[in-house]
Order: sequence, then structure tokens, then C-alpha cells
Amino acid sequence: MFDVTRYAAVAQSLIEAGRFLYDNGWSPATSSNYSARLDGHHIAITVSGRHKGQLAAGDIMVVDYAGCPVQSDARSSAETLLHTVLYEQFPDVGVVLHTHSVNATVLSRMLSGKEQLTLQDYELQKAFPGVTTHEAPLVVPIFDNTQDISALSERTRQWFAEHPEQPGYLIRGHGLYTWGKTMADCLRHVEAFEFLFACEIEMMKVRS
Amino acid sequence: MFDVTRYAAVAQSLIEAGRFLYDNGWSPATSSNYSARLDGHHIAITVSGRHKGQLAAGDIMVVDYAGCPVQSDARSSAETLLHTVLYEQFPDVGVVLHTHSVNATVLSRMLSGKEQLTLQDYELQKAFPGVTTHEAPLVVPIFDNTQDISALSERTRQWFAEHPEQPGYLIRGHGLYTWGKTMADCLRHVEAFEFLFACEIEMMKVRS
Amino acid sequence: MFDVTRYAAVAQSLIEAGRFLYDNGWSPATSSNYSARLDGHHIAITVSGRHKGQLAAGDIMVVDYAGCPVQSDARSSAETLLHTVLYEQFPDVGVVLHTHSVNATVLSRMLSGKEQLTLQDYELQKAFPGVTTHEAPLVVPIFDNTQDISALSERTRQWFAEHPEQPGYLIRGHGLYTWGKTMADCLRHVEAFEFLFACEIEMMKVRS
Amino acid sequence: MFDVTRYAAVAQSLIEAGRFLYDNGWSPATSSNYSARLDGHHIAITVSGRHKGQLAAGDIMVVDYAGCPVQSDARSSAETLLHTVLYEQFPDVGVVLHTHSVNATVLSRMLSGKEQLTLQDYELQKAFPGVTTHEAPLVVPIFDNTQDISALSERTRQWFAEHPEQPGYLIRGHGLYTWGKTMADCLRHVEAFEFLFACEIEMMKVRS
Repeated sequence: MFDVTRYAAVAQSLIEAGRFLYDNGWSPATSSNYSARLDGHHIAITVSGRHKGQLAAGDIMVVDYAGCPVQSDARSSAETLLHTVLYEQFPDVGVVLHTHSVNATVLSRMLSGKEQLTLQDYELQKAFPGVTTHEAPLVVPIFDNTQDISALSERTRQWFAEHPEQPGYLIRGHGLYTWGKTMADCLRHVEAFEFLFACEIEMMKVRS
Repeated sequence: MFDVTRYAAVAQSLIEAGRFLYDNGWSPATSSNYSARLDGHHIAITVSGRHKGQLAAGDIMVVDYAGCPVQSDARSSAETLLHTVLYEQFPDVGVVLHTHSVNATVLSRMLSGKEQLTLQDYELQKAFPGVTTHEAPLVVPIFDNTQDISALSERTRQWFAEHPEQPGYLIRGHGLYTWGKTMADCLRHVEAFEFLFACEIEMMKVRS
Repeated sequence: MFDVTRYAAVAQSLIEAGRFLYDNGWSPATSSNYSARLDGHHIAITVSGRHKGQLAAGDIMVVDYAGCPVQSDARSSAETLLHTVLYEQFPDVGVVLHTHSVNATVLSRMLSGKEQLTLQDYELQKAFPGVTTHEAPLVVPIFDNTQDISALSERTRQWFAEHPEQPGYLIRGHGLYTWGKTMADCLRHVEAFEFLFACEIEMMKVRS
Repeated sequence: MFDVTRYAAVAQSLIEAGRFLYDNGWSPATSSNYSARLDGHHIAITVSGRHKGQLAAGDIMVVDYAGCPVQSDARSSAETLLHTVLYEQFPDVGVVLHTHSVNATVLSRMLSGKEQLTLQDYELQKAFPGVTTHEAPLVVPIFDNTQDISALSERTRQWFAEHPEQPGYLIRGHGLYTWGKTMADCLRHVEAFEFLFACEIEMMKVRS
């Protein structure tokens, strides 16, 4: 069984993150889903289809690493396995945020046919752990969107195995997945990615 | 006669929706109009020309399905018939929101000469009822703007008869009409449409 | 002498307008100036160089129609004569707002060499008094920027004499002047102009 | 030793500036750093890596003009020397703000290979001290980004010696440095630069 006090604290942090992310326009129209690790067997995750700027206590449920509800008859996001694979793969990860911004959507679509976005010469790359200079390229994989989440989660698992330092990825026409040790780390990653996506799109518009 | 308690509750929800929509920049300069169904003969609707971010009790009136004021000498929006036709056509519809954003205006004008916008490969299409995959195209009709609202309302009625699953339409240079069972549903549709319009325009700018 | 109670009420409305306009990004970096008519000889106007989002009682002074301070040793905006000429020319005008947005600046510069902006086929043109259809063109004159405000004020006076229905004008690389009977009318005009400028620029970007 | 009361007041002004700058999107993801002069030997400056919208008392430390911590075991920004060189060079400067906006990042990158940005014909240039007309060009140097801050600080020192009236500079792909006598002056400079950068980028997009 999971620790209920930890669940309550974690749920509150997800509720507050939702308000922040929604207010920034990164989780519109009940899109997005967020989770946090409870222990070696359980995560807390948003219930499917809820308004992310108006999350309340009943909107955060517990699932195990196989994605099955624990002590709940609610339904978690269809993308639950994209979360659990991250907790399995990266022992240090405490929080996973999936957001759904215009910029992430547009950028991933404009790079149609490409399997990755390469970011370079941005000082803000240093917002990610282990990055000490703007000169090193930061590669963000782009996976094609699919309604077969199980297959996609396996593809991401394989990618992580080969790229243990990866801070996030895009799903085409769909949005961003990013993670971190703490909620503060993970929110910093969302902000940094959104900043970098905005820069990339602005430069595309100037160059076009 | 309509139920006064229901009118009061519905008016409050329209007032709050106005504040939200205005704050998002989707109802500037007294544009837009909003309504909700009271019963099989009456709807509540915004009085013409009011500031949508500052709606108060006296700014929501009652009209019948022919668009005639009921127990009021106020004047409802010139576009009242665009609302009533929706309540007549779709028994499940409880709320209709007409918004007036820069993106809806620009997108409908850029598609000049075209009678529809086709959205595809966006995960957020799933925000609309009955949509289960990003792979199916979502067609949004674009009607030319006119000051002859009666004629336009008949054109929309005909379109709905042929497209019973339609979640919204555009009027060129004018804005969006969308609807839903509840206010929460309808606001989700506004958010989803505005997100998709923003994406389409951003992609046009990158491609241009 | 002017009515002090009216001055106090008018000053408060200018203070609140400043907060609104600054929050929208339309009066950055102490730019912009605002005024309201007190009577047939006096107007209240912002003191030069004040932060428009933080206006307080001492930031609104009185000047006569020649632009001379009344009961004050403060200095009003260098552009005071652009305000007074409007009160002289249009007996119905109660409020004049000069704003300084990115869109007004960019649009007026992109139309370099042109003396006017023509807006057409926008439903929102109906936010201006006397406009009943989107089909009629709305002409907005663009005056070249100058530090000789006296000369510019005479040029605007001449333009108004020939265009008594004009709701506003642009100064190139500088911003918008608009006016109205009441503060609510004038703020609606600012919102409508900013919306229309945004649309024009977005369309230029898509077309480029 | 420095005056503790002055430190406390200055720290509070930096905390409030951080909230403002973060809320405008100009200091995302723990980027940016801010400082204020305490006396002829000390400045107050933000501790490295803190959330700029959530600065608290413990996030502002004191360093001497050589960048060494005073009465603190915290670590100041890696860019501390870019601040101290300004206080050494300009006796009137009381505040230095380094911000990190999308527009500053994109504009400095789009001008790749160029060592300066020239702003002209903007009324808002008058927000900077000593500028009395939009007709005079305002030159903003652009330094290439580097992780060797000591070398960069020397390059800026040389530039200031030759351009004593300079109100700010850009680091490519990194952001803006600007300064002023007071916090109000310096914030006005940030706003003015951000406005002008936005205009430049918008015009590039229209022209592209």
C-alpha cells in the first residue's frame, strides 16, 4: 500500500502545477496529464479529461507501474504508460509533466518527417541537468503521434535506454513530455523547453 | 413562462464565461454574444453592445426561439437567430458561445474564397465529442459575413441538418460559433478551437 | 476656474484607464498620455513621463486649451496640443487616449510612405460610432512622426475638419490617438483599433 | 562593511523586480540575474540558479567589485563580473538588470555575424536618457555568447569606455544587459528595449 500522507502532498503539488501550466496556455481544453512518484510501486496521476486549471482533490488518482488503478474506480489518462515507463527507466525521476502548447504542437508538425529537433547556441540549454555550455547540441526526439500508447511507450523506453541523459521529448502534433527529480526541476524544464520552442518557431517565421 | 431560478443560475454562468473569454482576448470591444437554453421555448442571451468582461445581472435577457424579447424591453444581439437555430436543431445543446478573436478573424479571412477549414493530425481534435483519433479530418465550415442574419441563420440550419455532429463554424472576418451540452463543454470547445486556429496561423506564417 | 469635484472624478478614471492600458502592453516605459475634458476651457491630462500603470493623484494635472498649466507647476506631455485640438474640434469628445503598442508602431512603419491605413471586411469596425456594416472601408490616417508637435496638431486639425466622423489616427513609429464621448467609448475604440491592427499585421505575416 | 539597512531595502527592490520580470516572461527557468549598488565597494546580487519570480530574502547576497562573496557562503551568478564592471565604469549606475527574453534571444541570433543592432525612427527611443528625438540612431552592441565571462566583461569594459552614453547591450542567444540610476529607470529601460526588440522582430517577420 502507498503512503497516504505522501499521496496528499504530491496531489497538492500536481494541482498547483496544473493551475500554473493552464494559466500559461500549455494545458488547454482538458489536454495534458501530470504525475509524481509515490514509491517503488505507485504513482499519483491526473484522472482523464479533467480541466487542468481547476484540478481538485478528486482529480488525482493512484496507479501502479502497470497503469492499473489502485483504490480507485476512476480512469487515468490514456497515456499513463508514457509516465510509468519513465519512472521505471529513471530511478531519480520524481515528477513527469506532459503539456500541450501551441508552440510544441506547431514545431513538431513543421519538422514533419524529422525524428528529432536539435537545439544549439542557446544559453538557456543550461537549465537542463548536466548541460554546462550553450555550445553542445541538445537533441529532442520527436515521436509520431499514435492512439496506440502501449507501442509508443515501448519506443520511448528503448530511446531512454540509449539516451539516459534525455530531459524530454515531443509527440508530433501533440505536445511535450519532460521530467525531473522534483516538481521545481520539472517545471523549470517545461519553462526552458517552451522558451526554446518559441525561439525556434520565431526564427522559422523570420527566415521563411 | 420560464423558470426564474434557472434564469438566474444561467445568467450567472454567462457572466462568468464573459469574464473568462474577455480576459483571453476573445471578446474585445463589446463584440461577441453568449446564450444558454432555459427550456423548450426560451433562452437567456446577452443584451446587445455590452462589455463582455463586465457583464452584470441586467446584461442577460430572455428571448423566445423566434428571437423576441420576453419580459424585457432590452434589445438582444443582432445575431440572436444564429443562437436560436442551434437550440432548435440540436436538442442536446445547452449553451452557445460566439467569440471574436484575432486568430478566428485572420484565419477565416486568409482562407478567402474557401468554404471550410479542415483540421487534421492534431491530438486536440479529441476535445470535441465523438472524436477518438487525431487521424480523422475535422471540417469547420466558413460562412461569408453578412448583415442579413436571418438569411445566414437559414444557411447554418441547412448545414447542421447535413452535419449533425458539427461542433462549430466560422463567419469570415467575424468569429467563431460553438456550442455544447454544458457551459464546461462549450468553454472547452472554445479553447480547443482557439488552440487549433492559433496552430493553423502559426504554420501559415512559418510556411509563407 | 474648473470644477474640482469633476477634476477628481476624471483624474480617477484616467488613473484606472492607465492601469488597464499598461497591463495590456499598450503604454510601456512611461510612453502614452491620456486626457479628459473638464469644461469649455480646461482638460485634465497626464503629467509628462509618469509610469502609466502606476498613475496616482499627483500625476493628473489641468491645462487650458492652449496647453498651459492651470494651478500647477507640473509639465504636461509634450503632445498636449494633440489633445486640445481634438476637444476644440469635436464638441462631443470627452476623452482622448494616446497609446503606444508594438502593433501600432510596427503597422505604421510597415506602411512606410503611405498616408493611410484602410480597414475593410472586419465585423469589429462596427465598434466605432456610425459604422453599421463591415463592408464600408474605414480609413485611418497615418501622420509622419515629428518632434514639432505644434505643426502636427495643425495638420490633424485640418484633417478632422475634412473628416468629422474620424475615430482615430496613427503617428508613424509612435502610436495611436483615439477619442470618444465617454471613457467607456474611448477604451472600446482602443480595443477595437488594437484588434484590427493585430489582424492586419498577422495577415501581412501570413502573406509575406 | 556595507550598510545593512541599505542592503535590506535594495534586496526587497530586487525581489519585486524579479516578480515583475518573470511575470512578463523575461526571466524564465531560473535564467537572468539582477544587482544593485550598495556603496563604493559592494553590490547586492541574486544568488545563482534561483527562480526569479519567487525570490526571497535569502536569494540576494553581497559581493565586492571583484565578484567575491561578502559575509556569505552562497554562490552568485557566473556572470557577476558583467555587473561589477558596469558599477566600476559608470559612477551614476545604481541598478543592473540582465534579462533573458525570447525576443532578445531570437533577435540577437537572427543578426548572426553582426556586432550591433541599430534602432531608429522609434518614438520610444526617448525612454533612454539623453535621447530627445526618434531620428537619431540608437546602437546596441551584440557580443557573442561565451562561458568565459571574465573575457567578456573586459570586452564590455572597453566598449563602455568608448560609448559612455550606452544604455544596454545584447549577448547573442542569451539576453539583454541594461542599467540605470534607479530601479524605476532600469525597469523602464528593460521595457523600452523589449518593446523595440519586439518591433524589430515583427518587422522582420512581415518583411521575410
